[in-house]
Amino acid sequence: MPRRSAAEARDTRARILDRAVVIAARDGLEGVTIGRLADDLEMSKAGVYGHFGSKEALQLATFDAAVEQFRQLVPARVPRTATGIERLRHLCDAWIDYLEHGGIAEGGCFLTAAATEFDGRPGPVRDAVAQAAGRWLAYLEHLAAAAVETGDLPPDTDPAQIAFELNGIAMSANQAIQLQRDDAAPQRARRAMHRAAGGR
Amino acid sequence: MPRRSAAEARDTRARILDRAVVIAARDGLEGVTIGRLADDLEMSKAGVYGHFGSKEALQLATFDAAVEQFRQLVPARVPRTATGIERLRHLCDAWIDYLEHGGIAEGGCFLTAAATEFDGRPGPVRDAVAQAAGRWLAYLEHLAAAAVETGDLPPDTDPAQIAFELNGIAMSANQAIQLQRDDAAPQRARRAMHRAAGGR
Repeated sequence: MPRRSAAEARDTRARILDRAVVIAARDGLEGVTIGRLADDLEMSKAGVYGHFGSKEALQLATFDAAVEQFRQLVPARVPRTATGIERLRHLCDAWIDYLEHGGIAEGGCFLTAAATEFDGRPGPVRDAVAQAAGRWLAYLEHLAAAAVETGDLPPDTDPAQIAFELNGIAMSANQAIQLQRDDAAPQRARRAMHRAAGGR
Repeated sequence: MPRRSAAEARDTRARILDRAVVIAARDGLEGVTIGRLADDLEMSKAGVYGHFGSKEALQLATFDAAVEQFRQLVPARVPRTATGIERLRHLCDAWIDYLEHGGIAEGGCFLTAAATEFDGRPGPVRDAVAQAAGRWLAYLEHLAAAAVETGDLPPDTDPAQIAFELNGIAMSANQAIQLQRDDAAPQRARRAMHRAAGGR
């Protein structure tokens, strides 16, 4: 009986977070409230509250869940066998696919939205967003540095500059797709990323 | 007496909007409410309401005021005598200066924040944000096309691609400055913009 309860609690928590990610993708993390989730899921407020304990804990868990979705949709799709510049290009292609298909829950790039929402509000949510953005830039930089090591990119390449530029191209594509509904954006992003990543 | 009242009304409206832009730069346009402005400015809610008539009209006026501040800080600083690629580079330098100094009211790039806040919410505010972003891209594209006409950029240049990439570099710089407090971001952005604009 206790074992079954723990499994049920995990399922309920996951169901709350699935819904929270959908709300946050549309209305931002500030739109995720215990009251709104309780209404949407036909649960009591106390029932939702019990899984998180505070609005801030709920926002942090929602952000983590969205980051995990992004991880499955983008870096997890890069073939394990790819190395050097091919690895970086596979990542760019998966990233553009993700943006082209609307990002998380069709709400666009979650990290970009959370960054502009929380960059001016000190606290644990801002810290979590800044850490996730920093990890992502470090990962891009690592892939660019690996392409220098294999000799695919020239030795004087600045991997951090490549990470900075790729991140910007993705944000431009995200805005063009989400705000302008610009069908040409994925192709523009592909061209720009392959150039920024040292393409031919 | 009526003339003096009209001037006073304009001043009060301007004072409300100055405060609204500061709030929006930090907490987003959704943070701009008639009640909050009335508290901050020690006015009655009816006093604030009378100048706008609805929360939506207040958000639209706040957005317009922020766009006008951006216009004064960035395009208005490009020397009238500059032509071709020099004009585009002066614009990029003014744009990076603006981001380096914290954007609007030190809240970062207002347009990027409003775009991620409203891209998923149909209505007049979303339409205004999309139009402003479209005008900005068209302006960048126009400057790039002018640099093709003067022969500063090759005839096969795609001005819309340059506009797309410059916009992304600015967003990456905005995130690096606002979220990561990265002092290297302005220099990275300068390098990337001069390259994207056909620099040496």
